Amino acid sequence: MAEAVVLLDLWVSPFGQRCRIALAEKGVAYEYKEQDLDNKSPLLLQANPVHKKIPVLIHDGKPVCESLIIVQYIDEVWSDGAPLLPVDPYARAQARFWGDFIDKKSSAFCSFSMDQIYEYGTRLWKLKGEAHQEAKKEFIEILKVLEAELGDKKYFGGDAFGYVDIALVPFCPWFYTFETCGGFSVEAEAPKLVAWGKRCLERESVSKVFDDPVKVYEILKQVYGFE
Amino acid sequence: MAEAVVLLDLWVSPFGQRCRIALAEKGVAYEYKEQDLDNKSPLLLQANPVHKKIPVLIHDGKPVCESLIIVQYIDEVWSDGAPLLPVDPYARAQARFWGDFIDKKSSAFCSFSMDQIYEYGTRLWKLKGEAHQEAKKEFIEILKVLEAELGDKKYFGGDAFGYVDIALVPFCPWFYTFETCGGFSVEAEAPKLVAWGKRCLERESVSKVFDDPVKVYEILKQVYGFE
Repeated sequence: MAEAVVLLDLWVSPFGQRCRIALAEKGVAYEYKEQDLDNKSPLLLQANPVHKKIPVLIHDGKPVCESLIIVQYIDEVWSDGAPLLPVDPYARAQARFWGDFIDKKSSAFCSFSMDQIYEYGTRLWKLKGEAHQEAKKEFIEILKVLEAELGDKKYFGGDAFGYVDIALVPFCPWFYTFETCGGFSVEAEAPKLVAWGKRCLERESVSKVFDDPVKVYEILKQVYGFE
Repeated sequence: MAEAVVLLDLWVSPFGQRCRIALAEKGVAYEYKEQDLDNKSPLLLQANPVHKKIPVLIHDGKPVCESLIIVQYIDEVWSDGAPLLPVDPYARAQARFWGDFIDKKSSAFCSFSMDQIYEYGTRLWKLKGEAHQEAKKEFIEILKVLEAELGDKKYFGGDAFGYVDIALVPFCPWFYTFETCGGFSVEAEAPKLVAWGKRCLERESVSKVFDDPVKVYEILKQVYGFE
């Protein structure tokens, strides 16, 4: 296919990383265009006039927005590779449910999503005392819900790496920051989730977008000014 | 098909209404089970242990949660009827984008979604003075974005009633309340949207779940105690 595929993205964005993993899994060649969110480009504003956010996938001139919608689009267009969503409608609905759960709780993992009251993750370094303890408790509860859903499966969908894995895995490099600021061990609370993250990291599609957790910590420390 | 289909729902819920419209469009017979959200049933808690919310579609004993995921599931399982989502992947991605937009802004239309900072709609009757004006402005902006996307099309997807229509139409009976509390006319701000709502109402699938706008106003007035 001689189609033009362009990704408007920000290197550290977990949402952008989802799209890059999906494109790599499908073996799709694309042009990567890093965006400056402090000075949004006319191309970004034109491609995503509603939310004005990255990532945006532009395929033959037509923009697709919202990371999990982009992942589904990639799965449907490049359908000759291994499917990212299961084929069975019930399993597909379950995958969509968990993708949606991760998005709803994504402020637990990442402060880029600012439109929720509970910015669980950032609260771990913003809050003190009792409020900090409450934030930590809620964060650990989310980890345990995901741990329970994963169970003893290799990936969230079973034996094959797919949609829910792609939705969640970009947040793994942030765990170190949350552990450091929250004073707890993700591995102690959700050992299967940590083992799953390591399994995902064995895939080239994941390892090549994976940020060094200490680097993520240093960036967040600089941005949010915590100690 | 002799399958057991059960819907756990609340009659006034726009999210539940989405599922009822989709089931009616596909001609699926189902058992309706009204839920008491002040006293959640063991069945609801078991079927949706993560969010503990309606609607839940239980198909052959297996629960599917989250209204737009349920609508997609219905479309995929009962695929012999007219499709609710378009067949073309790009059109599907666009439909999902607008469904997601409506969900993200659904607190603009309905106070059932309490997990956002901006409860646009309820702010129209909760707030006074400048804050009230701000809430009204934001609400009208959302209407105008939807009006622009609809344009001169019959339905959001074109000539066929589908996914985005199902996502949005249950909020139409709430417009009267927002107009009354906000001191503006939805028809003056978004005439095409109002005409679209009337077109949707000509469908039996919509008319049979449609609440009387004045009744909705009376219920909300009672629940929120506004004048």
